[in-house]
Amino acid sequence: MKRIGVALLLFASLCYAQETSEFKPAATNILDAPYPRVDSTLRAEFRIKAPDATAVKLNFWSGPKLDMVKQPDGFWTVTTPPLVPGLHYYTLIVDGVEASDPSSHAFYGGSRDTSMIEIPEPGSTYYSAQEVPHGQVREVWYHSSVTGGWRDALVYTPPGYDEQTKVRYPVLYLQHGGGEDETGWIKQGHANFILDNLIAAGSTKPMIIVMANGYARRAGYIPPDLTGKPFGSPEMMKAMQEMASAFEDDMTQALIPFIDSTFRTIPDRDHRAMAGLSMGGMQTFQVTFDHLDLFSYIGGFSGAGGMSMMRGDQKFDTKTAFNGALADPTAFAKRVHLLWIGVGTEEPAMMHAGIVKLHTALDEAKVGHVFYESPGTSHEWQTWRRDLKEFAPKLFQEGAAKP
Amino acid sequence: MKRIGVALLLFASLCYAQETSEFKPAATNILDAPYPRVDSTLRAEFRIKAPDATAVKLNFWSGPKLDMVKQPDGFWTVTTPPLVPGLHYYTLIVDGVEASDPSSHAFYGGSRDTSMIEIPEPGSTYYSAQEVPHGQVREVWYHSSVTGGWRDALVYTPPGYDEQTKVRYPVLYLQHGGGEDETGWIKQGHANFILDNLIAAGSTKPMIIVMANGYARRAGYIPPDLTGKPFGSPEMMKAMQEMASAFEDDMTQALIPFIDSTFRTIPDRDHRAMAGLSMGGMQTFQVTFDHLDLFSYIGGFSGAGGMSMMRGDQKFDTKTAFNGALADPTAFAKRVHLLWIGVGTEEPAMMHAGIVKLHTALDEAKVGHVFYESPGTSHEWQTWRRDLKEFAPKLFQEGAAKP
Repeated sequence: MKRIGVALLLFASLCYAQETSEFKPAATNILDAPYPRVDSTLRAEFRIKAPDATAVKLNFWSGPKLDMVKQPDGFWTVTTPPLVPGLHYYTLIVDGVEASDPSSHAFYGGSRDTSMIEIPEPGSTYYSAQEVPHGQVREVWYHSSVTGGWRDALVYTPPGYDEQTKVRYPVLYLQHGGGEDETGWIKQGHANFILDNLIAAGSTKPMIIVMANGYARRAGYIPPDLTGKPFGSPEMMKAMQEMASAFEDDMTQALIPFIDSTFRTIPDRDHRAMAGLSMGGMQTFQVTFDHLDLFSYIGGFSGAGGMSMMRGDQKFDTKTAFNGALADPTAFAKRVHLLWIGVGTEEPAMMHAGIVKLHTALDEAKVGHVFYESPGTSHEWQTWRRDLKEFAPKLFQEGAAKP
Repeated sequence: MKRIGVALLLFASLCYAQETSEFKPAATNILDAPYPRVDSTLRAEFRIKAPDATAVKLNFWSGPKLDMVKQPDGFWTVTTPPLVPGLHYYTLIVDGVEASDPSSHAFYGGSRDTSMIEIPEPGSTYYSAQEVPHGQVREVWYHSSVTGGWRDALVYTPPGYDEQTKVRYPVLYLQHGGGEDETGWIKQGHANFILDNLIAAGSTKPMIIVMANGYARRAGYIPPDLTGKPFGSPEMMKAMQEMASAFEDDMTQALIPFIDSTFRTIPDRDHRAMAGLSMGGMQTFQVTFDHLDLFSYIGGFSGAGGMSMMRGDQKFDTKTAFNGALADPTAFAKRVHLLWIGVGTEEPAMMHAGIVKLHTALDEAKVGHVFYESPGTSHEWQTWRRDLKEFAPKLFQEGAAKP
């Protein structure tokens, strides 16, 4: 129980006064699955049939690891304390094997399809389907001369895109985190509903959102065998840099030209943004600062400034970072309309400290930026849903659209 | 081993002469997962780490159930005999618990997200991404007055849809099977690639394909608790009929009007088809024969003619079936441009016999139809991919398109 985490305990204290407890199936369940279920105090009850197992654990990736208890009917059950609102990855560990919960829909995370539970945030409707016009989410395929094959991407087109055939739109490129894929911002993040709701409220410009697969390999490249190499080994870092470089080229040489020739975009830097979460935030900083001719809005959600930011031993020098792009804050402010850095207050200490260090360095150098802290949330999707909800309204407010 | 099935053994004999055996990761694997892997004789090798488990089985839903063998390194492995080409559902049974394989992507089937393995059909490229123009697959949301909520559907738009803004297209409504959902025809079936390839070859008219979620409940309807009721109980049959009726109304009253107002369709019966697999085939027969004012092409893939077809004790009377729509074969042929009935030769005997009985009854009554048998395949996706490949070219060949 000691791994429940500060965020969970903080939230639990808020719920202390509530006593009602009618359980309802989680929104993340498959059709008609009665478990897992959540009560009004945000406790969750899990159940799995495993009559022959000798030990079953409930394993939250960013939260408690709880022993499940065998019932006489062969089911194992456990009820959690109140949980932090948001979407939590979990698995069931059956006799040592990490298994998905068959009652939960599968979400791609941790480099596998796994289970998640949605703990509703009381009073929050911004990330669910409301009675407003809905955009579409399109899977598209493009041929990449960088990877030498077909790649897919998801594209959100805002309400009215098909009807207003003379209107052109700005574009936000929005990237998933490490271990996730291009489906994350829709399936986990509900980016489409967030934008539908913001656009309906009139607070956000209608825009296209492109979600690419963040893993790319150059044609002919054979990834090294990292078996036996420690995490962070030189071989692993080299392979990661090679993938990041291939992704950068794929995005700027194949994906962006495809999007601009396929959709009614406004294909200039004033109408092109990029943001991403965790690994996607680091990719965002790499791609945008290497290509300030292409982008003028930049967002790092729980991941910003590159790998060096995550290390306590390295100073971030605003004079030299990103080839000097930040050295003249006035010039930078004219060139980049928004630099956004977000983090959850309950993220792992090193992650939180790295982001704060970047924020502090930018402040000291008087480099204009927005620093956003999501209260009470960890390195999880509720942090990034909130980032997007606050970030999107600030996009494309500069300059007039060129039709 | 006795449950490997006739299809498997038939195929194995074809491969007898082949001896090479270089294993390659299955196309259904998550990124970089080395297992499961398939060799050139179509044997598949599976592996899972479970050092504490006492028994692990590989469980093909339409094929063999094999004991896996524990290796000294804590991995359990097994290599199958040569498998039938196509996409096979499977799970791993760890100490009695049915678990997904973390190395496989998840596919919705059997009312859960589960594992599948793609066994490539030698020489077949029709269901994979080729060097041809690709359509888009769009997730759309529509409000249904029948269910009282938002529902989603997937919509394939053919290559060129966004560019040729004056062209209107015919529509095929294409339904998944029981236990699957609206993602099945894309994720499992590759319907988009099948159509891309057929359209590029010039053999099939460009068309829109709509894939709806086949489960619908009327607003306010509370499904009965079927706990303890046997499969096929009167309560279960009543609940199924109620769901089928709600689906029919949702489709005809909410979905079709939404599609016709959202996409550039040709909104008449001559340019509207419906087909489905298994449960979706039965839904197709119910919806189309109740609404011949809306449809003129009908396809049942391994599911046709309604539930009664699946029962050996009931005769199919072409004079009275479907309110007499088949009673006059000449009138029917004028009204319905295509009636398609497909089945795999290796499907379970009752399923195969039911479809053949319908085909025979139609033949005897001289009701024009196409009967298609997929050689060597069972009640699985390879049967339905082939159905679609043969069925789609026959659509919308009657009458001129009305722009």
